[in-house]
Amino acid sequence: MSNVLVLGHKNPDTDSICSAISYAYLKNEMGMLAEPVRLGEVNNETLFALNTFKFDEPRLVTQVAKEATQVILVDHNERQQSADDIGDVQVIEVVDHHRIANFETMDPLYFRAEPVGCTTTIILKLFKENNVEVPSNIAGLMLSAIISDSLLFKSPTCTEQDVKAAAELAEIAGVDAQSYGLDLLKAGADLSNKTLEDLISLDSKEFEAGDHRFEVAQVNAIDVEEVMVRQKELEVLMTNAILTKKLNLFMFVVTDILNNNSVAIVLGKRADIIESAFKSSVIDHRVLLPGVVSRKKQIVPVITEALS
Amino acid sequence: MSNVLVLGHKNPDTDSICSAISYAYLKNEMGMLAEPVRLGEVNNETLFALNTFKFDEPRLVTQVAKEATQVILVDHNERQQSADDIGDVQVIEVVDHHRIANFETMDPLYFRAEPVGCTTTIILKLFKENNVEVPSNIAGLMLSAIISDSLLFKSPTCTEQDVKAAAELAEIAGVDAQSYGLDLLKAGADLSNKTLEDLISLDSKEFEAGDHRFEVAQVNAIDVEEVMVRQKELEVLMTNAILTKKLNLFMFVVTDILNNNSVAIVLGKRADIIESAFKSSVIDHRVLLPGVVSRKKQIVPVITEALS
Repeated sequence: MSNVLVLGHKNPDTDSICSAISYAYLKNEMGMLAEPVRLGEVNNETLFALNTFKFDEPRLVTQVAKEATQVILVDHNERQQSADDIGDVQVIEVVDHHRIANFETMDPLYFRAEPVGCTTTIILKLFKENNVEVPSNIAGLMLSAIISDSLLFKSPTCTEQDVKAAAELAEIAGVDAQSYGLDLLKAGADLSNKTLEDLISLDSKEFEAGDHRFEVAQVNAIDVEEVMVRQKELEVLMTNAILTKKLNLFMFVVTDILNNNSVAIVLGKRADIIESAFKSSVIDHRVLLPGVVSRKKQIVPVITEALS
Repeated sequence: MSNVLVLGHKNPDTDSICSAISYAYLKNEMGMLAEPVRLGEVNNETLFALNTFKFDEPRLVTQVAKEATQVILVDHNERQQSADDIGDVQVIEVVDHHRIANFETMDPLYFRAEPVGCTTTIILKLFKENNVEVPSNIAGLMLSAIISDSLLFKSPTCTEQDVKAAAELAEIAGVDAQSYGLDLLKAGADLSNKTLEDLISLDSKEFEAGDHRFEVAQVNAIDVEEVMVRQKELEVLMTNAILTKKLNLFMFVVTDILNNNSVAIVLGKRADIIESAFKSSVIDHRVLLPGVVSRKKQIVPVITEALS
């Protein structure tokens, strides 16, 4: 019998990687043979978390059906964000905190989605519901995911439950959430070893709204202008992506993690919706987004609504 | 501010009605203004449960958007099984035990599906997770739902969790699960006041598989032949439904609740798949299904697979 693979979304972020590792740990404790895997490269922030709590990167798996007949999805449910061959395996569980779309099964399954800021906040509940103790290094990873998804509790996606879970996990992990959190975010905002291709692809997600396909890439930065001086070069890569993936809109968002604002480059046939949707002028394909830090809560619903 | 409506599926069965009442009770205890409603007529079995535990029928609501902006779905998630105008309101929660399909939201929500035999088995967990006590009359309804969905624990959909939940609920309700359960099922199998139209519509559900639409109606009976002697008349009504609803297949299943077998009438363009799908001869549109009692586990996946 092959292992059940536990996987987060493409272009994995810290929540996707840490949820896969911690949920696979829980399932193993509950008697299932489960292995965490990843669908893409690990980013600097996640690497910092893995190094701090002494974990190896999960194994890279691009074709899940070659390896397993059953999988568990964490931190995503939409087909286009999952393994390309996800339709060839049985999804037996989903633990997620996103909207639900483009997801369908033949059989009943365990599907646990909650409108909280981070998947590991839900996974902490599942540890408790199943009376399994969270080991200190796993708690460190779970805490890292909450800090990452909530931008150290400042994102509007962050709920009281996330704050409470993070406090509990920091205690178990034996770290100070604020100082560790700032180090973690800074590691993620270190763009020095990133190519321009990395910037527009590493944390990028595709969405569908009606007949429209759009993609939103996001990078965190300490110095936003360091990225934006290369706007013209970025636009060339974005235009390529639009053609290759048949996108109607590509939005590249640079988020200032110290001041909690964003600036974005928008391209594509339907870039015309941005100005009125976000109530902010688009000048030279660039738009300022004051107070916007959350793709999930402040960007994707706005674009989806405008395109629908 | 209008109440949040809590609703089960069309052609409500005992689980849909009892889940709506008990989950609305829980949400009210947790501080939400929630009202259980129903999308259709209450069947004899459900009426028996409501009478036994002294509940009124929930209010009939056919257009949810006229009444509320937010709803909670219990015991279903597929759009075509819900209110016709479900797309005009926000679904803020789902508690269900079916496969997931034709469901999509703009925003994250609370979605709790588990592969157990009955929705109220999950709702019992939610009472506990939220530290709310189950009152004895609510426990009676929740027990009724489990007995109904599991055919008194004999259906292959019944899990250990359902049996355990039922034992706990019977204790709280102060009834004997076996003797109350048999009375409940017998009340549901009393077809004496049912028209033929009732038989093919009261517990009937539509499904989609690829480009195909199919419907499966099910009635429980003590004496299967009492229903089957009227096969020719039933076929006329089924043919009408096929034309009106543009179905590729209509399966009418009569389940012998004492012996746990079923017999079905199958009509429609794609009735050709039935013989090989169920490995049983179709003679005069009639097929014997030994050991088959569960639409969800033993019928719908088999048809879906054959049509895909």
